[in-house]
Amino acid sequence: MIRIGVIGCGYWGPNLIRNFHDNDRSAVAMVCDLDPAKLARATRFAPTAQTTTDVATMLTSDIDAVVIATPVSSHYELALAALEAGKHVLIEKPMAATSVQCARLIEEATRRGLVLMVDHTFVYTGAVRKIRELVQNGDLGQVYYYDSVRVNLGLFQHDVDVLWDLAVHDLSIIEYVLGRHPVAVSASGVSHVTGSPANLAFLTLFFDDETVAHVNANWLAPVKIRRTLIGGSKKMIVYDDLEPSEKIKIYDKGITVAEQDEEIYKMLIGYRVGDMWAPNLDSVEALRRETDHFLDCIENRQRPETDGAMGQRVVEILEAASLSMRERGRPVALSERTGK
Amino acid sequence: MIRIGVIGCGYWGPNLIRNFHDNDRSAVAMVCDLDPAKLARATRFAPTAQTTTDVATMLTSDIDAVVIATPVSSHYELALAALEAGKHVLIEKPMAATSVQCARLIEEATRRGLVLMVDHTFVYTGAVRKIRELVQNGDLGQVYYYDSVRVNLGLFQHDVDVLWDLAVHDLSIIEYVLGRHPVAVSASGVSHVTGSPANLAFLTLFFDDETVAHVNANWLAPVKIRRTLIGGSKKMIVYDDLEPSEKIKIYDKGITVAEQDEEIYKMLIGYRVGDMWAPNLDSVEALRRETDHFLDCIENRQRPETDGAMGQRVVEILEAASLSMRERGRPVALSERTGK
Amino acid sequence: MIRIGVIGCGYWGPNLIRNFHDNDRSAVAMVCDLDPAKLARATRFAPTAQTTTDVATMLTSDIDAVVIATPVSSHYELALAALEAGKHVLIEKPMAATSVQCARLIEEATRRGLVLMVDHTFVYTGAVRKIRELVQNGDLGQVYYYDSVRVNLGLFQHDVDVLWDLAVHDLSIIEYVLGRHPVAVSASGVSHVTGSPANLAFLTLFFDDETVAHVNANWLAPVKIRRTLIGGSKKMIVYDDLEPSEKIKIYDKGITVAEQDEEIYKMLIGYRVGDMWAPNLDSVEALRRETDHFLDCIENRQRPETDGAMGQRVVEILEAASLSMRERGRPVALSERTGK
Amino acid sequence: MIRIGVIGCGYWGPNLIRNFHDNDRSAVAMVCDLDPAKLARATRFAPTAQTTTDVATMLTSDIDAVVIATPVSSHYELALAALEAGKHVLIEKPMAATSVQCARLIEEATRRGLVLMVDHTFVYTGAVRKIRELVQNGDLGQVYYYDSVRVNLGLFQHDVDVLWDLAVHDLSIIEYVLGRHPVAVSASGVSHVTGSPANLAFLTLFFDDETVAHVNANWLAPVKIRRTLIGGSKKMIVYDDLEPSEKIKIYDKGITVAEQDEEIYKMLIGYRVGDMWAPNLDSVEALRRETDHFLDCIENRQRPETDGAMGQRVVEILEAASLSMRERGRPVALSERTGK
Repeated sequence: MIRIGVIGCGYWGPNLIRNFHDNDRSAVAMVCDLDPAKLARATRFAPTAQTTTDVATMLTSDIDAVVIATPVSSHYELALAALEAGKHVLIEKPMAATSVQCARLIEEATRRGLVLMVDHTFVYTGAVRKIRELVQNGDLGQVYYYDSVRVNLGLFQHDVDVLWDLAVHDLSIIEYVLGRHPVAVSASGVSHVTGSPANLAFLTLFFDDETVAHVNANWLAPVKIRRTLIGGSKKMIVYDDLEPSEKIKIYDKGITVAEQDEEIYKMLIGYRVGDMWAPNLDSVEALRRETDHFLDCIENRQRPETDGAMGQRVVEILEAASLSMRERGRPVALSERTGK
Repeated sequence: MIRIGVIGCGYWGPNLIRNFHDNDRSAVAMVCDLDPAKLARATRFAPTAQTTTDVATMLTSDIDAVVIATPVSSHYELALAALEAGKHVLIEKPMAATSVQCARLIEEATRRGLVLMVDHTFVYTGAVRKIRELVQNGDLGQVYYYDSVRVNLGLFQHDVDVLWDLAVHDLSIIEYVLGRHPVAVSASGVSHVTGSPANLAFLTLFFDDETVAHVNANWLAPVKIRRTLIGGSKKMIVYDDLEPSEKIKIYDKGITVAEQDEEIYKMLIGYRVGDMWAPNLDSVEALRRETDHFLDCIENRQRPETDGAMGQRVVEILEAASLSMRERGRPVALSERTGK
Repeated sequence: MIRIGVIGCGYWGPNLIRNFHDNDRSAVAMVCDLDPAKLARATRFAPTAQTTTDVATMLTSDIDAVVIATPVSSHYELALAALEAGKHVLIEKPMAATSVQCARLIEEATRRGLVLMVDHTFVYTGAVRKIRELVQNGDLGQVYYYDSVRVNLGLFQHDVDVLWDLAVHDLSIIEYVLGRHPVAVSASGVSHVTGSPANLAFLTLFFDDETVAHVNANWLAPVKIRRTLIGGSKKMIVYDDLEPSEKIKIYDKGITVAEQDEEIYKMLIGYRVGDMWAPNLDSVEALRRETDHFLDCIENRQRPETDGAMGQRVVEILEAASLSMRERGRPVALSERTGK
Repeated sequence: MIRIGVIGCGYWGPNLIRNFHDNDRSAVAMVCDLDPAKLARATRFAPTAQTTTDVATMLTSDIDAVVIATPVSSHYELALAALEAGKHVLIEKPMAATSVQCARLIEEATRRGLVLMVDHTFVYTGAVRKIRELVQNGDLGQVYYYDSVRVNLGLFQHDVDVLWDLAVHDLSIIEYVLGRHPVAVSASGVSHVTGSPANLAFLTLFFDDETVAHVNANWLAPVKIRRTLIGGSKKMIVYDDLEPSEKIKIYDKGITVAEQDEEIYKMLIGYRVGDMWAPNLDSVEALRRETDHFLDCIENRQRPETDGAMGQRVVEILEAASLSMRERGRPVALSERTGK
């Protein structure tokens, strides 16, 4: 039985508590939050958990792993303390406020042989895993683009902008599905509340070929949209995360390009329209798969699918996006930011 | 009875022919195209029209007005010849290949007292007119953003990229609805066919305050989407042009911002969720309203709602976007391009 | 060139005129309506057509075939006169006001060797033809049910109720797709306008096994719905005629039934959920296919797919439904009505 | 603190357990099921609950109220025993297997002054309460019809048919919203599994005027649909329970009827198309409102909104429907069945 401590009982923490409590291989031994009312509420359905408002109490207890579900600005300090106390760590996304902090955490976990996992939940959904399968086995052909709209009337975060809050999901999906890293970004965005981070932003990722990715993220939209178009040379996908049953639709559609003999630079473009197909998806709850994977990694000292390295790459892209956004879309090379 | 000559029997020309033929105040007197088969087809339902493959024949005839529905690259030459022949002119969008050409056409029309109108059809839809009314009478409050997705598996144009073909609609709508002009743009886009213009592009328009506009245009999408979100400080709109009956939905949703006494820079953000309302829209066909307006302008020597000046401003933005796209989103000031 | 005369320029007539005018093998030679304004309007796009307000003038002319697009109550008299004048006949659905009238028309056409076709347009759509193919080749397994909702805010007919106006479409589809005939019906419906036929009705068709069909028809609905569920032992279909591109979705879903050894009458039911598939449909316009078929039948003296016999069977079911509706759903055997 | 005992840990029981556990005014003191695995599972998140496989143990304990979430066939016996043991009772719908049993339970509860409530959950949703408000305050005008489609691939029940399982929801909504009772029913339905109750059924309810209600219920549908159209003389409603945010849309649409002077029996029907409006709904969870109401009724000896009388009327309609279904839709008067 792996003993889990959870820090943070805000929006996401209770979901993690519920899942680790519900898993036969783990017990939620302790829960920490500064607000006693939230603590009481969060443990109402997790009767085995002790509560504390003091992180040190948790870190000196006999728990095996710490789950961090607090605001981003506190991730680094809490995760570092947990690793130094010899605990495995699962951190809510994004991993930390800077990529330098990410690197430091990876180093500490590696040195101590501890599991360091980032809670990029979408990677554990049946939909995203199916998309990865379709891309990796060549069904889509060459991937042309990833184009996501992720908007709703959502909680305005105080410490991070809308890209760090929403586009972060797409960045982890892109990393997982494509297995490739962008070389530059251009981002534009605005804040409509004085003193608050950007609540609306558009992010383009450039790769070293014609592949392009785009994310439209918005906290101030009238409706909720979670839809991604993925275009390939052979097939195209519509991934709508709000569809209850057919989240992925695969279209056998596209263009055909034929060179014309005499005018080699003028292409003859044809259009192909075929069937649509919605595969039945694995219905395991993403958080269930994720908690199982975290427990597996601890038991077998495995590297998680959403490890620190992925977490760091995502933060690097977000840092470059922030830089670009301040200059109205100026392209920022990933190497520019990281000095590579 | 105003006698109309139509040049170009491709995709759009036949719609214009049908409308001018169906209007009691006009007759389609002549139709011109290089392809006799297209000519025969286009006039099957317009029995009064003579046909010709020679533009000069049309321009020396007794028609009153010329409607130009040819590829963009030919707009300038044809429109100039028509104006010089003393004919009123309606040009399909975009108005011309460069803003310099637009300026020259405006000058010629003004000098001769002729009507010069650009076929920005969306301006004549019941939906866009209702949105303008809602914005102009203050129902939306301050407009925060205009965010449009306009994608489908569409015809790859040979002479213009996807922004000139699709985003052009949004630019005319923005001009008409907001009555304001952007100060800078950032655009990114790619071509997935060697030697072909960009088939996928993202365009951000910056204004001199926090207003922002964004257009996602794509010829290579698996599904057709025509959806625009418009956010305001009081209300927000979803405009879905593919909805058969409720194209506009107005959401009484948003945020409230309260300053906190002691920390003046820290805002307290509240969320407001109220009713949704879909106004019944005027059902006049847009092309019908547009042809009527063109005929009115000719009869009364009026300035059209979509006049040359609007056509020119749209082309200026497209030119700036093309410049930005070549440099992966580098922000381009509108003044930079036009030398203002 | 087959010369066509069209009687009736109401809602549907102009569509038929447009199609026969547009077909290279036919010409619309004459159009008849009592209202000169409608006549002028209907022939605006069909310049070859003479107009008349007198049916006799048309029937004594040299046309080859008559298309009847008038109210139901006049179908019989007009069609009989046309047949007696030696013209082939295409009648808008439903074929006639009584099945006895249908029988008389069939007899007359047969005797004279003329084509008698009923305009059950849905039979000529790509969607319905694909459904028939899926049913006939066994993909669906045993067909369990056909369940259609066909409602909108529609024109209240004066001479027929909503089943004769809307459910008639489903009856022709059922005839065509299943190739089987019901043995009894139960119908209920009400009128919400004094003196007007039922504007809302529900119709159940019983077959000689467990197959069942149901139609929900309504002229007074707030939204337009055209959706049919078809359940089979192997697969199930959702047919939504308002979907622009994916009208048919085929679900690999259902139940499995296993007998349990000891309790032979207690079945163990399992549930099967697989992929969904939307086949690309033939995009030929239904009216185009139908007019071509009518011309083929005339040229080759073929029996139409929607011949008089199908038209008569549809009217027989409608007669039985009317009887049942007057008695709040009392089941009416088809043989009861027809005396078979 | 009201002490609750829950009998039945199948599909619905755990939801009731969670709600009574989460309510500050009640405690789940005991849970009963024959299956120890289900008991363990159901109480994992309700740590205060004792478990038992013996109903008598629960009924002789010091609990105040019994919640019955077992198959229908056991409702009567369990509820009667609970009432005789002096416990308040909440029974899952439908109330019992026969209306005679319902009457007996009402009598027993009345005699002992105990609360007897039926778990018609939909009555406690924000959507249904808003519809009732719109109907009762006259916004809809005269109600013309209630037309519901409630289908999905659902669990085939062994002891009741699909009307008793699904249409029961509509019957409680109709009772609550209209406050009127039907006078006759016609039902048709079939079973596609030998020896199993009807899995597909259509039910029409007749009232003493032109109001009509219809329910289409199906366990073997390829997709889940929960949509009800409600037509009134002034406005019409679309209630789609699967819509995440706009469950109710109110259409200002309909017909106008004008008598014509000379032909008093011939009505002139006009069509009215206005705005659509989706009111923001109370977001209290239905089960939360229901458990609160049950606790209120116990504390104040109030009569519940979904009391035994409503439960009995619903069962009476279901009995009449079963009778009609056996005879292919023969109309059954409610008085015929109940001998009133």
